[in-house]
Amino acid sequence: MRRRNLQLDEHGRLRHLLTIEGLKRQQIVDILDTAESFITVGDQQVRKVPLLRGKTIVNLFFEASTRTLTTFELAAKRLSADVLKININTSATVKGESLLDMLQNLEAMQCDMFVVRHGDSGAAHLIAQHVAPHISVINAGDGRHAHPTQALLDIFTIRRHKGEFAPLTVAIVGDIMHSRVARSQIHALTTLGISDLRVIAPKTLIPAQVEGLGVHVYHDMKEGLHNADVVIMLRLQKERMQGALLPSEQEYFQGYGLTEEKLAVAKTDVMVMHPGPINRGVEIDSEVADGPRSVILEQVSNGIAVRMAVMSMVLGRPPMDKESEGAAQ
Amino acid sequence: MRRRNLQLDEHGRLRHLLTIEGLKRQQIVDILDTAESFITVGDQQVRKVPLLRGKTIVNLFFEASTRTLTTFELAAKRLSADVLKININTSATVKGESLLDMLQNLEAMQCDMFVVRHGDSGAAHLIAQHVAPHISVINAGDGRHAHPTQALLDIFTIRRHKGEFAPLTVAIVGDIMHSRVARSQIHALTTLGISDLRVIAPKTLIPAQVEGLGVHVYHDMKEGLHNADVVIMLRLQKERMQGALLPSEQEYFQGYGLTEEKLAVAKTDVMVMHPGPINRGVEIDSEVADGPRSVILEQVSNGIAVRMAVMSMVLGRPPMDKESEGAAQ
Amino acid sequence: MRRRNLQLDEHGRLRHLLTIEGLKRQQIVDILDTAESFITVGDQQVRKVPLLRGKTIVNLFFEASTRTLTTFELAAKRLSADVLKININTSATVKGESLLDMLQNLEAMQCDMFVVRHGDSGAAHLIAQHVAPHISVINAGDGRHAHPTQALLDIFTIRRHKGEFAPLTVAIVGDIMHSRVARSQIHALTTLGISDLRVIAPKTLIPAQVEGLGVHVYHDMKEGLHNADVVIMLRLQKERMQGALLPSEQEYFQGYGLTEEKLAVAKTDVMVMHPGPINRGVEIDSEVADGPRSVILEQVSNGIAVRMAVMSMVLGRPPMDKESEGAAQ
Repeated sequence: MRRRNLQLDEHGRLRHLLTIEGLKRQQIVDILDTAESFITVGDQQVRKVPLLRGKTIVNLFFEASTRTLTTFELAAKRLSADVLKININTSATVKGESLLDMLQNLEAMQCDMFVVRHGDSGAAHLIAQHVAPHISVINAGDGRHAHPTQALLDIFTIRRHKGEFAPLTVAIVGDIMHSRVARSQIHALTTLGISDLRVIAPKTLIPAQVEGLGVHVYHDMKEGLHNADVVIMLRLQKERMQGALLPSEQEYFQGYGLTEEKLAVAKTDVMVMHPGPINRGVEIDSEVADGPRSVILEQVSNGIAVRMAVMSMVLGRPPMDKESEGAAQ
Repeated sequence: MRRRNLQLDEHGRLRHLLTIEGLKRQQIVDILDTAESFITVGDQQVRKVPLLRGKTIVNLFFEASTRTLTTFELAAKRLSADVLKININTSATVKGESLLDMLQNLEAMQCDMFVVRHGDSGAAHLIAQHVAPHISVINAGDGRHAHPTQALLDIFTIRRHKGEFAPLTVAIVGDIMHSRVARSQIHALTTLGISDLRVIAPKTLIPAQVEGLGVHVYHDMKEGLHNADVVIMLRLQKERMQGALLPSEQEYFQGYGLTEEKLAVAKTDVMVMHPGPINRGVEIDSEVADGPRSVILEQVSNGIAVRMAVMSMVLGRPPMDKESEGAAQ
Repeated sequence: MRRRNLQLDEHGRLRHLLTIEGLKRQQIVDILDTAESFITVGDQQVRKVPLLRGKTIVNLFFEASTRTLTTFELAAKRLSADVLKININTSATVKGESLLDMLQNLEAMQCDMFVVRHGDSGAAHLIAQHVAPHISVINAGDGRHAHPTQALLDIFTIRRHKGEFAPLTVAIVGDIMHSRVARSQIHALTTLGISDLRVIAPKTLIPAQVEGLGVHVYHDMKEGLHNADVVIMLRLQKERMQGALLPSEQEYFQGYGLTEEKLAVAKTDVMVMHPGPINRGVEIDSEVADGPRSVILEQVSNGIAVRMAVMSMVLGRPPMDKESEGAAQ
């Protein structure tokens, strides 16, 4: 018996989605392939499929969100699941004990999945450790730790445009230090064998030992963007920045805001990405955000297909018989 | 090529519903006929039809509302659509730029319809100008400008009781100046060829040049209600009244509140209407509101059928081939 | 013609569920049997049945609630009904008049059921007196008066474990005085012919003349729990307690909190119940709440089946023809 990843079941299949770390290349590719099946010819999504009919999905958002919450809700509805939005009474959940009581009650109501966003790193893991065997947990962002469905929709969008990952040069720009999105993107892209992954930020926004993750660090935009196939801009999370790590928004834009002029050093068919919502004129210029190389809105569309894929995969695992179990090992 | 109304598609069919102005008589009649098909014998509505299965309808209410929001939600659900209620974060939408970003994101999520209520006149038009070609916008009330589905349900209710519009005398009573409901009712009733349309209000609540719309102005209730077939009372929108346009509520009721005594000069089979919610004892006496000539609750019921009609018509337009296109011109 | 209970229709069938009082033994058993049909082998509920497709159920919660509101919402969705959650604007409903106007509007929208929770005793009755003939009202808790679905899920849970009610000794522990749950449980258990029903509480929390309801009063836990088959703990409703009826939480726990040590005098197969949410260390020790004799989470699961049963029974009454009507008298 080997020690198993918390997010995999006894057959090695995805049961929870908590983080990209520890997923095998093939598991990531399976998710992308499944997401592809939810996109039909002409970029029209299959709007309503009965895959999760009768299942109950609970959105537990302890942090405010519009885009992520809405796309999870739409993904669940388009899979024909029932969706429950719990109004989080923060006062009732300050003690971990009460949170666990609430979760046990939701389990007793035969809920099947918790989609969790929480300001504390590790919150989704903690919940996954305590849920009943039939329940799946999806991490919709925990503190500075991980945001796996965002990273998956990002690489899904890249694959739809570029095909292969190995030859690509991808630059992630902005507050790497505080970004759970960046962390998940780095794990996804390195697992997929990307040849040149770069992070670009001022020194104060680069975490120590980030090179250990397999990225190259740049502090200058024109150097970092040179010959890039993909540029991923991060949202400047003003509320997460403590103290004087940053100059003014204007100075930040001067140094690290993405403009057509800075982008000129990248490849001519460079893709510009952003997880949204964008701060126009802070981390990205409107001309770029709304320009022909931006795929920002396509990322939003793809987010629904990717979330449908993850939800249907973790809840749709058929029980395995002994023989196929043997074969799967 | 003639310049087309923003709310019509290239074949002249209803794509958005923003205002009654500019609709042809036949288009209005088509909506009423479709609404009729959602009412079955015995005033029982067909509760659930699969017409909009797989479609996503977004309620974007920037102004508080219970009745309108709820009937739009019920109409959408009874058409089997998925309904999304967006919690408007006013701080995120103070800049028009952010509002448009939010709309683009909802479009990217493959939403099909925005039902918009907003305190600013023209808000629904502005949104309709910017949405993608496959999206429809329904105006659920914009500032003092228009409230077309309310006017449609009102004339639908009149037609169910009176049949023909041409011979009718209809009096609209109250704050004509600030009422988007009155404005839409006037356009609907004049388009339908009503012979005698009256507005009754104190001088301070009558807009300049209102006669140009084809109405007769009265300042005295007994004169204005004389021989009326239909009386439409408006809600006194206290929050919209600036300064000292009005005397006290009691004085207003004295002059313009609808009582059995004032109603005695109308036809004996007069219908009493009100868009709700009613201010009892301010613009209408409870004896009248709850009396046998009141159709106020019937208006609410009809509102669902009319909204189902509009929603299914704008989203259900089949693509036209060249031949039928020619025929439609 | 005999005077009929407000909650029964002209054929004696359940139309509303307002209180357990006045229900016949067979009516209660019918509800339990129907609930049983919603539980399949292996405690898996049938998740989605089309029984109430096309029906609209409105949750009118004037008091905060998570568990009860959520289980009613889930029960409705699993019966395929459309569910409407009304945001109660307390300012709009301070006058009973406005509340009734709001209800009439919801009726006009062809809603079929109001699930009502309200801080005033009698609120659900008041609403039931005013609704149109086709509408059903379910009391989800009114003041200190009644909480009938909670009592039904409690006896349903007891029956699943113990089978017969007659031979049982059941002890209800805690704030009997202010508890609508206790009141409904006492009516249910006495109607089912339980032989020994006990309430245990300090004198200040026992209502006068409670013995008239058929219960035995104890002020000492070890005496009251002696030989008990079932112990039902009540939540200490701190917000409902006025003045100095109680000592400190610690002293209360000392006297009336359920611990393994106090529970030792009960039968060895005693069931421990609690309507939730539990106050750990106040009315119940965590060791007991999470222990093998606790069925607290099973109560939550059963709550969905019982609410599905009540909803489908009151809305699913087929019209009776003359003959069967005669037979039913």
